[in-house]
Amino acid sequence: MPTANLPQGLQASATQCGIRRSKSRLDLALLLADQDYPAAAVYTKSLLLGAHIPVAREHLAATGGKLRAVLVNSGNANCSTGQRGIEDNRRVCEALAKQLGCATEEVLFLSTGVIGAHLPLDLILGSLPNLTGPSGQPGVQAFAQGIMTTDLVPKLVVHDATEPATGAPFRVTGIGKGSGMIHPDMATMFGFLLTDAPLGSDPHALLTRINGRSFQRLSVDGDTSPNDTVLLWGTGRAAEADPALLEQHLTAASRDIARRIATDGEGATRLITIRITGAPTEAEAAHVARVVATSPLVKTAVHGRDPNWGRLLAAAARAGVAFDPEQAIVRIGPATVYEAGTPLPDNEQAAHLHMLQDKEVVATIHLAAGTAEAECWTCDFSADYVRINADYRS
Amino acid sequence: MPTANLPQGLQASATQCGIRRSKSRLDLALLLADQDYPAAAVYTKSLLLGAHIPVAREHLAATGGKLRAVLVNSGNANCSTGQRGIEDNRRVCEALAKQLGCATEEVLFLSTGVIGAHLPLDLILGSLPNLTGPSGQPGVQAFAQGIMTTDLVPKLVVHDATEPATGAPFRVTGIGKGSGMIHPDMATMFGFLLTDAPLGSDPHALLTRINGRSFQRLSVDGDTSPNDTVLLWGTGRAAEADPALLEQHLTAASRDIARRIATDGEGATRLITIRITGAPTEAEAAHVARVVATSPLVKTAVHGRDPNWGRLLAAAARAGVAFDPEQAIVRIGPATVYEAGTPLPDNEQAAHLHMLQDKEVVATIHLAAGTAEAECWTCDFSADYVRINADYRS
Repeated sequence: MPTANLPQGLQASATQCGIRRSKSRLDLALLLADQDYPAAAVYTKSLLLGAHIPVAREHLAATGGKLRAVLVNSGNANCSTGQRGIEDNRRVCEALAKQLGCATEEVLFLSTGVIGAHLPLDLILGSLPNLTGPSGQPGVQAFAQGIMTTDLVPKLVVHDATEPATGAPFRVTGIGKGSGMIHPDMATMFGFLLTDAPLGSDPHALLTRINGRSFQRLSVDGDTSPNDTVLLWGTGRAAEADPALLEQHLTAASRDIARRIATDGEGATRLITIRITGAPTEAEAAHVARVVATSPLVKTAVHGRDPNWGRLLAAAARAGVAFDPEQAIVRIGPATVYEAGTPLPDNEQAAHLHMLQDKEVVATIHLAAGTAEAECWTCDFSADYVRINADYRS
Repeated sequence: MPTANLPQGLQASATQCGIRRSKSRLDLALLLADQDYPAAAVYTKSLLLGAHIPVAREHLAATGGKLRAVLVNSGNANCSTGQRGIEDNRRVCEALAKQLGCATEEVLFLSTGVIGAHLPLDLILGSLPNLTGPSGQPGVQAFAQGIMTTDLVPKLVVHDATEPATGAPFRVTGIGKGSGMIHPDMATMFGFLLTDAPLGSDPHALLTRINGRSFQRLSVDGDTSPNDTVLLWGTGRAAEADPALLEQHLTAASRDIARRIATDGEGATRLITIRITGAPTEAEAAHVARVVATSPLVKTAVHGRDPNWGRLLAAAARAGVAFDPEQAIVRIGPATVYEAGTPLPDNEQAAHLHMLQDKEVVATIHLAAGTAEAECWTCDFSADYVRINADYRS
């Protein structure tokens, strides 16, 4: 298993175990460390939980947050599968742990895909040896492909950084999957944030901050799934990195993955960045940005390349954060289309061209109610989104 | 002006004043009382307000909540029009009051349509005499047509009721407009609840209760508009009616109008009723119902006639109200499709047939967390919705 594009101490691979209807697709993927390393995870806030979530929580608690291996299958979410689903998850963890010679609790096994169906346990157990043997497909690219469901492209970013004080290099690798919450391929989003820099004393607090500024700022269709999981894992094999610098790189990688998920949104033709400035607090800026980013009217307007300041302003105005619309400013790309309570129709052509020509549409709403800002990412809403989600059984 | 289908003391009419691009459409409509009667209004909670809202608030406050006339134009929302918009509203109220021989404050003038454009004041002022003269189109049906924007059908319901204690009749007439929040036809929803029964001592509290169980349970696309207004107006010309019975009829008429708005949602092919049962409180049931009713995945699933219990349950599970998904029950029409933590695929065909054959799709989620219930209404999400909202400029 090669380590290209991975932090020191980690390797990756994937194989076809046959869960997916399309037999030519990788559907079982492994991240493997040369020993156990600190990790932290955050999960969906839904009450409907994939079976892997209670088991993962239990394992990370048992080891004090240390992991040797993370196995992922796509094509089956192991969700709404009751107690048997939880036992299936444990059995796979046990088998992999035995194969690797580590404790069961040092292994996580995450699932994504169809809900309401039991895992094909024999297929998975029979394929575990392939992941570390010559018949598996090695490398982080294979891992990124193996976790895809309705994604059209794998999502992988690598940040090579240098600690300025010592000149020592460290690496951050981000991998993600997600495209929309679609049943049967329902269990939506995974993020893996890997580094060889030490994570410090509280990896969970670090992950919570990173997640709050990346995956929590992402919306494809406003629906969260029962299996969403983001994992931070640090081997510490690189020399000490400045914690602020490490957090910067982890956050940047994480935002990058989140933006790629929005770009790959079901039926999407544009990445949309909603930037709220002049807010009382960052949390309020993020809240307004999220409301605007989930508005179907905003998302269809971008699909129509329509510089519709009215929908942007109206969505912000119903978000529950106090500001004066007469003082607000709305910009689309480089063009100011509303200011001082007045539409600026002469600037709409420049806004329209931005929407027509650029793959990323940036809409900025200045609330004139403070100095904080935040952005959210989403994608446009197309007739293809409706087709993908309405017609999957036909 | 005839009074058919209106409560005693009220008449209605409409005319073409030429605001709308389509000159053949009625676009100025009047509700007129034979003297001033008690009324109450509730408005959008958006920070972006159509010019009619501050003026209406002021007028109702000045008269202690009494009205002689309500004028409505469609085709122009008089929103984002600054101080001039407010002055335009006042000028029209003044002119109509002069024509009717009443105080300006006894007149409301509501606008719906394009935002960001000033009212064509000369057209409106010049057409006021038509509304009470022979060249206007008389009747409540004309009024219901005159307030339409993207609506495909006028929305009018009449409840004729009898007070059981005395045998005295009273009438409730409900009129509404709304189809989606679309720019330029952005200012979405009006509701008019008219009765000849006396409204009692606190019409505003009465309206707030009615509204909470009708228009507040309605979502076409999750976007509220800057001009939303619901007006309750009671002439008291009928004999005293039991307050509980009156509230029942007003609420029923109001829900009926709300359901018609959902049925006429942009691009809709199905009315969807989301019914939440077994909730801790009615407010929590309504909250969960609203979250489910605004899920694009639920709305596209209904469009595809797909009995997708997973999307229904997942949307309920992320609403922030505590319940145990293992105990929940999901029904689509007559068919139970999920119960005791287990999908029931054998029942999906019956659910599919309900979605295929019935114009109203009823999805019930039992939370098994209490005894309260509530329902919300929405419509399915079609590729036509996207086309209507993305392509309006092309």
